[in-house]
Amino acid sequence: MTKVVTFGEVMMRLSPPLNYKLIQTNHLDIIYGGGEANVSASLAQMGVPAEHVTCFPANDLGKAAAQFFQQYGVSMANTVFRGNRLGLYFLEAGASVRASKIVYDRADSAFANLDPAGFDWEKILTGADWFHWTGITPAISDTAARACADAIATARRLGVKVSADVNYRRNLWQYGKKAQDVMPALVEGCDVVVCAENDADDLFAITPDPAADHSFVSMSEQLMARFPAIKQVITTRRDTLSASHNQLRGLLYDGESFVETPTYDIVPIVDRIGGGDAFMAGFIYGSLTYPSASEALLCGVAASVIKHSIHGDFNLASVAEVEEVMRGNTSGRLLR
Amino acid sequence: MTKVVTFGEVMMRLSPPLNYKLIQTNHLDIIYGGGEANVSASLAQMGVPAEHVTCFPANDLGKAAAQFFQQYGVSMANTVFRGNRLGLYFLEAGASVRASKIVYDRADSAFANLDPAGFDWEKILTGADWFHWTGITPAISDTAARACADAIATARRLGVKVSADVNYRRNLWQYGKKAQDVMPALVEGCDVVVCAENDADDLFAITPDPAADHSFVSMSEQLMARFPAIKQVITTRRDTLSASHNQLRGLLYDGESFVETPTYDIVPIVDRIGGGDAFMAGFIYGSLTYPSASEALLCGVAASVIKHSIHGDFNLASVAEVEEVMRGNTSGRLLR
Amino acid sequence: MTKVVTFGEVMMRLSPPLNYKLIQTNHLDIIYGGGEANVSASLAQMGVPAEHVTCFPANDLGKAAAQFFQQYGVSMANTVFRGNRLGLYFLEAGASVRASKIVYDRADSAFANLDPAGFDWEKILTGADWFHWTGITPAISDTAARACADAIATARRLGVKVSADVNYRRNLWQYGKKAQDVMPALVEGCDVVVCAENDADDLFAITPDPAADHSFVSMSEQLMARFPAIKQVITTRRDTLSASHNQLRGLLYDGESFVETPTYDIVPIVDRIGGGDAFMAGFIYGSLTYPSASEALLCGVAASVIKHSIHGDFNLASVAEVEEVMRGNTSGRLLR
Amino acid sequence: MTKVVTFGEVMMRLSPPLNYKLIQTNHLDIIYGGGEANVSASLAQMGVPAEHVTCFPANDLGKAAAQFFQQYGVSMANTVFRGNRLGLYFLEAGASVRASKIVYDRADSAFANLDPAGFDWEKILTGADWFHWTGITPAISDTAARACADAIATARRLGVKVSADVNYRRNLWQYGKKAQDVMPALVEGCDVVVCAENDADDLFAITPDPAADHSFVSMSEQLMARFPAIKQVITTRRDTLSASHNQLRGLLYDGESFVETPTYDIVPIVDRIGGGDAFMAGFIYGSLTYPSASEALLCGVAASVIKHSIHGDFNLASVAEVEEVMRGNTSGRLLR
Amino acid sequence: MTKVVTFGEVMMRLSPPLNYKLIQTNHLDIIYGGGEANVSASLAQMGVPAEHVTCFPANDLGKAAAQFFQQYGVSMANTVFRGNRLGLYFLEAGASVRASKIVYDRADSAFANLDPAGFDWEKILTGADWFHWTGITPAISDTAARACADAIATARRLGVKVSADVNYRRNLWQYGKKAQDVMPALVEGCDVVVCAENDADDLFAITPDPAADHSFVSMSEQLMARFPAIKQVITTRRDTLSASHNQLRGLLYDGESFVETPTYDIVPIVDRIGGGDAFMAGFIYGSLTYPSASEALLCGVAASVIKHSIHGDFNLASVAEVEEVMRGNTSGRLLR
Amino acid sequence: MTKVVTFGEVMMRLSPPLNYKLIQTNHLDIIYGGGEANVSASLAQMGVPAEHVTCFPANDLGKAAAQFFQQYGVSMANTVFRGNRLGLYFLEAGASVRASKIVYDRADSAFANLDPAGFDWEKILTGADWFHWTGITPAISDTAARACADAIATARRLGVKVSADVNYRRNLWQYGKKAQDVMPALVEGCDVVVCAENDADDLFAITPDPAADHSFVSMSEQLMARFPAIKQVITTRRDTLSASHNQLRGLLYDGESFVETPTYDIVPIVDRIGGGDAFMAGFIYGSLTYPSASEALLCGVAASVIKHSIHGDFNLASVAEVEEVMRGNTSGRLLR
Repeated sequence: MTKVVTFGEVMMRLSPPLNYKLIQTNHLDIIYGGGEANVSASLAQMGVPAEHVTCFPANDLGKAAAQFFQQYGVSMANTVFRGNRLGLYFLEAGASVRASKIVYDRADSAFANLDPAGFDWEKILTGADWFHWTGITPAISDTAARACADAIATARRLGVKVSADVNYRRNLWQYGKKAQDVMPALVEGCDVVVCAENDADDLFAITPDPAADHSFVSMSEQLMARFPAIKQVITTRRDTLSASHNQLRGLLYDGESFVETPTYDIVPIVDRIGGGDAFMAGFIYGSLTYPSASEALLCGVAASVIKHSIHGDFNLASVAEVEEVMRGNTSGRLLR
Repeated sequence: MTKVVTFGEVMMRLSPPLNYKLIQTNHLDIIYGGGEANVSASLAQMGVPAEHVTCFPANDLGKAAAQFFQQYGVSMANTVFRGNRLGLYFLEAGASVRASKIVYDRADSAFANLDPAGFDWEKILTGADWFHWTGITPAISDTAARACADAIATARRLGVKVSADVNYRRNLWQYGKKAQDVMPALVEGCDVVVCAENDADDLFAITPDPAADHSFVSMSEQLMARFPAIKQVITTRRDTLSASHNQLRGLLYDGESFVETPTYDIVPIVDRIGGGDAFMAGFIYGSLTYPSASEALLCGVAASVIKHSIHGDFNLASVAEVEEVMRGNTSGRLLR
Repeated sequence: MTKVVTFGEVMMRLSPPLNYKLIQTNHLDIIYGGGEANVSASLAQMGVPAEHVTCFPANDLGKAAAQFFQQYGVSMANTVFRGNRLGLYFLEAGASVRASKIVYDRADSAFANLDPAGFDWEKILTGADWFHWTGITPAISDTAARACADAIATARRLGVKVSADVNYRRNLWQYGKKAQDVMPALVEGCDVVVCAENDADDLFAITPDPAADHSFVSMSEQLMARFPAIKQVITTRRDTLSASHNQLRGLLYDGESFVETPTYDIVPIVDRIGGGDAFMAGFIYGSLTYPSASEALLCGVAASVIKHSIHGDFNLASVAEVEEVMRGNTSGRLLR
Repeated sequence: MTKVVTFGEVMMRLSPPLNYKLIQTNHLDIIYGGGEANVSASLAQMGVPAEHVTCFPANDLGKAAAQFFQQYGVSMANTVFRGNRLGLYFLEAGASVRASKIVYDRADSAFANLDPAGFDWEKILTGADWFHWTGITPAISDTAARACADAIATARRLGVKVSADVNYRRNLWQYGKKAQDVMPALVEGCDVVVCAENDADDLFAITPDPAADHSFVSMSEQLMARFPAIKQVITTRRDTLSASHNQLRGLLYDGESFVETPTYDIVPIVDRIGGGDAFMAGFIYGSLTYPSASEALLCGVAASVIKHSIHGDFNLASVAEVEEVMRGNTSGRLLR
Repeated sequence: MTKVVTFGEVMMRLSPPLNYKLIQTNHLDIIYGGGEANVSASLAQMGVPAEHVTCFPANDLGKAAAQFFQQYGVSMANTVFRGNRLGLYFLEAGASVRASKIVYDRADSAFANLDPAGFDWEKILTGADWFHWTGITPAISDTAARACADAIATARRLGVKVSADVNYRRNLWQYGKKAQDVMPALVEGCDVVVCAENDADDLFAITPDPAADHSFVSMSEQLMARFPAIKQVITTRRDTLSASHNQLRGLLYDGESFVETPTYDIVPIVDRIGGGDAFMAGFIYGSLTYPSASEALLCGVAASVIKHSIHGDFNLASVAEVEEVMRGNTSGRLLR
Repeated sequence: MTKVVTFGEVMMRLSPPLNYKLIQTNHLDIIYGGGEANVSASLAQMGVPAEHVTCFPANDLGKAAAQFFQQYGVSMANTVFRGNRLGLYFLEAGASVRASKIVYDRADSAFANLDPAGFDWEKILTGADWFHWTGITPAISDTAARACADAIATARRLGVKVSADVNYRRNLWQYGKKAQDVMPALVEGCDVVVCAENDADDLFAITPDPAADHSFVSMSEQLMARFPAIKQVITTRRDTLSASHNQLRGLLYDGESFVETPTYDIVPIVDRIGGGDAFMAGFIYGSLTYPSASEALLCGVAASVIKHSIHGDFNLASVAEVEEVMRGNTSGRLLR
């Protein structure tokens, strides 16, 4: 059976209930999440054996975070418990014209201070089918970037498929190296990348040919030329009509053909966080399950659309529910 | 003054808060409801004396369920406390493309095991104006079906008007008899039935004449021909745009004329459960109060539309609020 | 630096959680608010020194109410603690077609029984730039009306700008005087008034010239003719599509030109109460900050629109968030 | 079958959760209660038909309060809905050395303004076995006192037993009459009174003979001499070791013998309010059920002791649970 | 490394918050637990690899229950998902003189209907050190009893130590066989049994010699004579001073010496359920870790004592916390 | 009128509800507190003008923390908003034998990185009567220690009384300096110190004369000899019977006489945190109000005892409530 491994930081997410603001509340709802771990959790809920690898502090918060993922079926068998603090962030849920707002408090976390030698990638990845990472990990610290590079190298050597959500966040890169210097070597080892035009521009100075029919295809062609290992470039297009109403579709280019899914209406949005990770998980599930890339892409988008109706960072919908949305049934009719 | 009697099972409804899923929650909100009891509760809130008859287990859950209905003004004076368990169901509230989902745990309930001899229908129905039942009751068990038949027969004898929501749910019929064999004899005693085309097809093999102007009218004509006691056939048409957005209108045929209400937009939906029961209660209230059937129908639809904005299974809006919606005022403007 | 002073009653607001009705709930959420105090709170959150003056009962509820405003940065230094009860009201939040509903219990409050001699307006208003009151205050009691008149007179004498939201609520005027007799003398001392056509008609028997291009301009011209101190007449136009969906725009006439803002869509509405007060606070902030009246008006509308997405009576959004909406960005895109 | 009728004001009780103080909380738990209505509710829970008569405001709060009592099985059939406000009080639950604290807001309630002609006591009390009132009712207003006098007179005429908890609260008597002038005529019509030495002193200037063996007996003898209708004087002795730990026993004198129950330890106290009312209800239940007065007294104390372990104003324990405590089993051993 | 396997039913536990009663509440807190699974959970929290084997219904409730145990580190790898319903029970937490109260609704559960052939005990127990079961399992159904017998037989064959909490509950044995006929054969295969004098009497007609120094020793000697495989008999003595205050100590007899721990005071009790299971888990942990049986016994008692201060069925305290209590430090001094 | 100034770090405190553990909860209750700021808050609640000076991060958490103290009447006028993170800690409330447990996450906070030049102590302390600091502040960072030294020096120069709770926490001193090197110079400027024997030993190598009558007096004499500015040495003695039950008394030595208060029983403990700060605040209040040091000491102890019955870090009891406990009334009798 297939197995997917993900690697990246997990943070405690603290949110006021409902749409309250931080300055109004005496209560916070807490969950634990991270861009890569969320992919494992969503996959585990779809029945795919999934393991997340990270570094947690050796205290009750690290224990609580690990237990949170275990609960959803994610293996934490190779997670290291070392260091002092769990990164965290405070999330205010917006509504209507008011945007959701995040206050990060993640500096100097156990993950940022991880020891790359602490992970036995050979052991972890043996028997795995897929390894997934994101551009957030190498942005956090030099050691995190090195652990990521080790994992990618090992995966390639073992023939494990590698995917990355390049996810460029300028303000995360604080440890002295530049994304533009670090990311290319990592992306070189990837089979699949999630990358939009602005990311390609920021990270690789790739700009679509203005004369091209479709900017995404033009960008993808250049990206694949630069990084020959890449076989698929995917992304989502999100129209943010309001904090409560988005529209979403998926795009894929595989070097030969360009696929675009229908646009899905999402209203109201229950929880926006993890939407991209659910897309990735759905795409991985679909790639491992369905015959065509267009089905995998549709699966990613459908999973992401449903995720927006679920509290927390994970897509907890069943495969049957995702496939219903893939078939175009978005009516939400009561199931008795 | 008028009095309405209803008969049927009451279950405990357990729902995670907000839009949480069962696998995410440590808390459940509980209420008690049932398709027939909900009609009594909604009527009691509109000021109509209403009594619900059922069988509860002789334990604290039965007591809690009875007290829940007493609170809303429903008489439980002839309810029997006997047996072991209260049926229950778990309800996850959907949102957007995600459907609400129900897990039933109602087998072998006190109601399913009721003793038909335990109800003195002569006493219960004397002085009543209206008796209401649904197709769920005879589906539960043979004894429940027999108690229902007794009640209908007694009602007819005493000149009490009888209504039924035929409500065919295939997976409920588990005790060895078929709906198609049981229901006709029961429907024979009804003055008013809630029945849509698919119910008529499933239960009575009645299919609309394809050449008819309106399938509902065609079906109703055949239904009334088969069951001459029926004077009115009613139903609602629901367009499920999403779990958060429905549209609703009502249809009525009385053997002579066909009435259709305007279509009401319901967005957002606060609680979908009990929408049909609120329609029935509104229709009964309207039939007892307004001169015309079209007003009764409009009252049913307006009551149902408002119910979707109220937590729980009952329409707790006042008659004044319902009549405001009947007049077409759906603006929801703040009342100081 | 500028300072704004407001004067008026503060009540405890008690609401069932979510969209529950009073007859369904065992829990009430409480906050404290009032049409004038809300303006101070919203201004304080925008960084403007603001003081609210009121009379609280000399008990724990008065203390709690005062502390609530202190928390949001409003000075309560000149508030009087005397009398027996805090006015209160119960608020059921509507949804969709169901209107929000208020049950008032404010009679005979400490504020209604205030002693006008208890406020040293000379001291309070010295150094202030702006004094704001509303038509609710003189409606409550004769002593409240007198205190309001004292404050207005003192403000004029000290050169403090005066604004009023005339806010005519017929059922509040219970103490024997008529709004039509009391209000003119108070409005005479105002530089800015919030007044819609129906208020002008009810209070001052001013009706727009039917031949006028714009009824608001016609009304404003007459109002300014009657009360020469008035330099600006403003108001909002609200289209109530449902309890969950409103549209809003602002209007201003300054004796020369008429300004109208774009119409903003508000869906879903998190909390409707205080929308008008946030408009007033935004307008005052804008008047004190931006060069043009049209910017001040736009600021008022933007602040009000955002307020509808915030629980409670206050606009807790930052100036940056308000200005984003003023620039037309209503997408509510996640802020990391 | 027996039926008990009670008469008195019902208030909304608003408490911060747990041991929070009013100045700390955003949430209030609400229930409805009153010294007399609590007796009916506790009796209804013990299976005794009970009706409470009161006057509620004609608004949603009055409706909510009535429904609260209906839920627990109390008939509200003769309650009048008239007037403007429901009395309310805010309750902070103490702990350890910190006392619980009440802020009353009950002036000018619908009950205080009741119309004595609104109650048809002949109809209400016909068929009843017991009528219970307390000294709080005549303290509230002249009309309340008159309605109480009417009820007592009617009860006597119809041969209905009358009990009173004289419950003297000095600060309640605000309407111009003195307890000392009003109470004697009312107590004259009572068969059973709850009265401690301090009440007897305050209300009737009765002081125990210092030479007597037992002050309670001495006081009771004088009380019975003054009011010959009284057949039993009862009271509880409460030792308040802390807000979390009390000790309780009951005393009874019937003109011949003096009975005292064992002392019960109550720790921790879940909810102190309604302890006296549960005693009264238990005593009434016991008087109607057991052969001896000493059993009735013990039933009252046991009911009161259990009530302290139950949230809210009512004793919701079953008769079986009360009798277990009467038998001296206070171990609280888990019941499977 | 050691591994412990447990087998038995898991139920959903539904409790009103705080000390509320079922007839008072709209909310239930839910967890999942069972006498054997609780042992695994407590062991997993102490760092011992633990697996629980059970049969869950193939629905969201079964999934939620399994995830609940996964969260706390219990392997559910060999749990079967088959059947229709999850057993459940409603728990009211008592206080002071009021006992906690349970309403069971566990009949006809997926576990009761399990297929003994569905468990591959050879595979499950290979490599395990300890297998634990309780007298509840054979009480549930014939198939459950047979699966239990299979497991015990396999464990013996594989040299896995077997323990049982004989836990006789008369009212559970409903399927036609008697405990007295079923239990002896099962207890025959046990190395360690938890058994008090009343259990021995009820199940095995063993009564202590009245002349013996200690009834527990006398009973144990007879038990060990009858079942020669038994090497240790243990139990706890609980003094139930009130629902909030218990005292606990442990007893052990190993055929040669009798050990008794000090008595621990437990006040207040946060949650009584699972106290015995925590004792068993502590004893197993201690047996696997410490050199002497008396330390194992003390560990069991200390774990149980701490468990009473923890919400839910599990002992979530760390080994360090348990050992602190074993050393006699019960001061609960703040740990910074 | 008097004014008290305090200086020190404020952290966000995050606690699971009730007695839940971090690994069990999805919700955290949040408040803000710090050993010095708590003194200001408790004083402000007793009516003493109080200002707390600290450094908060320039984000929504800093704003929320400041508003939390404003709410309780503490001036934050000279607090600096600069830096990145708010220190925080997670608190599990213990019960019975289980200790409360804290996980700190306070490293590298805005306060630790404060700029000593950012505080204008001359301005802040002019007009103040009392300045209070604790040994936690110089433990945090070198800049914090320097700011503390500046404040003490300025206070002395301006004739402001200085108190310190020396509060030695070994594991806090991480920045390279030792408490033993830093503290003496700071304590030299103090008039009043809270210091127990172990603190004196750890910090100043002062050990009580074994032959002395009372170790506290012996220690105090040596302390006052070493630091001649000290006029009073005070401390509390706490007997920790369990996490739910403590006993407390206060000790004072003023160079001439030794005073000891009665011992107070505290059971149950609602919230242990802030007990020492409430003692300090009560002592300061008492010193400013009562004629004798023994009354001030008693006031400190009484305030601390009541604080243990209040959620959060502050003593929110009124002066009247504190004085009631000072008079020995600890019965917690209901106040109507």
